[in-house]
Amino acid sequence: MEEVMTLKPIGKIRSPYKQKFGTPRQSGLVSSARAEILLDSDRVPPGSLDGLQGFSHIWLIFQFHKNDAININGKIRPPRLDGEKIGFLATRTPHRPNSLGLSVVELIEINPEKNSLMVQGIDLIDQTPILDIKPYIKDYDSIENTRQDWVDETKSEKLVIEWKSPDLFENLNLETKKLIEETLCFDLRNLEDKTKNDESKIHKSFIDQYDVHFCYEANKVIIVSTQKVPGT
Amino acid sequence: MEEVMTLKPIGKIRSPYKQKFGTPRQSGLVSSARAEILLDSDRVPPGSLDGLQGFSHIWLIFQFHKNDAININGKIRPPRLDGEKIGFLATRTPHRPNSLGLSVVELIEINPEKNSLMVQGIDLIDQTPILDIKPYIKDYDSIENTRQDWVDETKSEKLVIEWKSPDLFENLNLETKKLIEETLCFDLRNLEDKTKNDESKIHKSFIDQYDVHFCYEANKVIIVSTQKVPGT
Repeated sequence: MEEVMTLKPIGKIRSPYKQKFGTPRQSGLVSSARAEILLDSDRVPPGSLDGLQGFSHIWLIFQFHKNDAININGKIRPPRLDGEKIGFLATRTPHRPNSLGLSVVELIEINPEKNSLMVQGIDLIDQTPILDIKPYIKDYDSIENTRQDWVDETKSEKLVIEWKSPDLFENLNLETKKLIEETLCFDLRNLEDKTKNDESKIHKSFIDQYDVHFCYEANKVIIVSTQKVPGT
Repeated sequence: MEEVMTLKPIGKIRSPYKQKFGTPRQSGLVSSARAEILLDSDRVPPGSLDGLQGFSHIWLIFQFHKNDAININGKIRPPRLDGEKIGFLATRTPHRPNSLGLSVVELIEINPEKNSLMVQGIDLIDQTPILDIKPYIKDYDSIENTRQDWVDETKSEKLVIEWKSPDLFENLNLETKKLIEETLCFDLRNLEDKTKNDESKIHKSFIDQYDVHFCYEANKVIIVSTQKVPGT
């Protein structure tokens, strides 16, 4: 198998998530996570989007472009399996040959003049290259009776959000506050941090225009600071 | 957007469909359409498949490798819309930038020794390069409330299958007969042939090891010959 295939992005996403840590692990988890897809008019000329407004959901096929190391030695430890190893093809890990990602998102608005789309429920980092967009068609894509053993056994509980002080969100608009809460209510720690469970450790994520610091305590996540970073 | 991405297939499919005409237009339409995915052990080493047996369905991301011309001038005429034009991004047409295809199929069996998978409900032509395989996870992939305007308005009726003579299927095994019937019960003609509606025209498709000839008459498809082609 010597064939090689060359792809060029059809667009890029402008997402509130600027780094891997904090970015939702799957689409649909954080419904308030909105993003704009800016399409390349050379690749997607006017008219390509005609009819797309009839669909509530779309598939994004994208490149996991922030992978520092691609693990193709066969097995990985998914966050939900608490250290257990599993073949990467049985997971949705970004560490896979060809670095292809697949997410279904809600289509909110089409802007033909800007050649852009607003979507929500995203799990993509800012500037992710978009390789294809397809309409979600329930007849084909929504399967009623499925079996998915290891995923069903490892449902993750949502954490309780606690703001250390009301000062921290007083200057946030409501959408940003909601986005931060919906993003942080999942335990985002890697396996090592989860195992150590150091309640004094400050974790950091950059969400929308804010540098957010937080720590974990039992079933709670405590937000300890929010710092606006101008020009982001 | 100058970035370019180079992909290499992780495997290839051995499908009973040898040409575009006759290949199902979407996955799941022909449940008896079985195929074997042969994986490249250099790209997908032993262990990569561990845990995949827990899933009933998998996503295939593949290359539409039989596209003679890629239409990226914005609009296409999907077979279901009887001549009406629509933006290609609002369809699942193979004629799209990057030639990426997406199908969910049923996982039947994993053969670790051959490093291969048996799947069914496929819509892929023989030798299609497979770029990625992902488990179907209902929580993420199955959306309950969707809107899909033009697709809902154009449900296609199944045709009645008529064998011109019992001789034509006497030597077929039951699986092959079922595969041919399930494949041909959809109107496979292109728009031009559908409009002309020439009942004397013989259409040909190569299914499994058989060269099958058939014609259309009102709501029926009439199979007029089946010829086994040795060594295919």
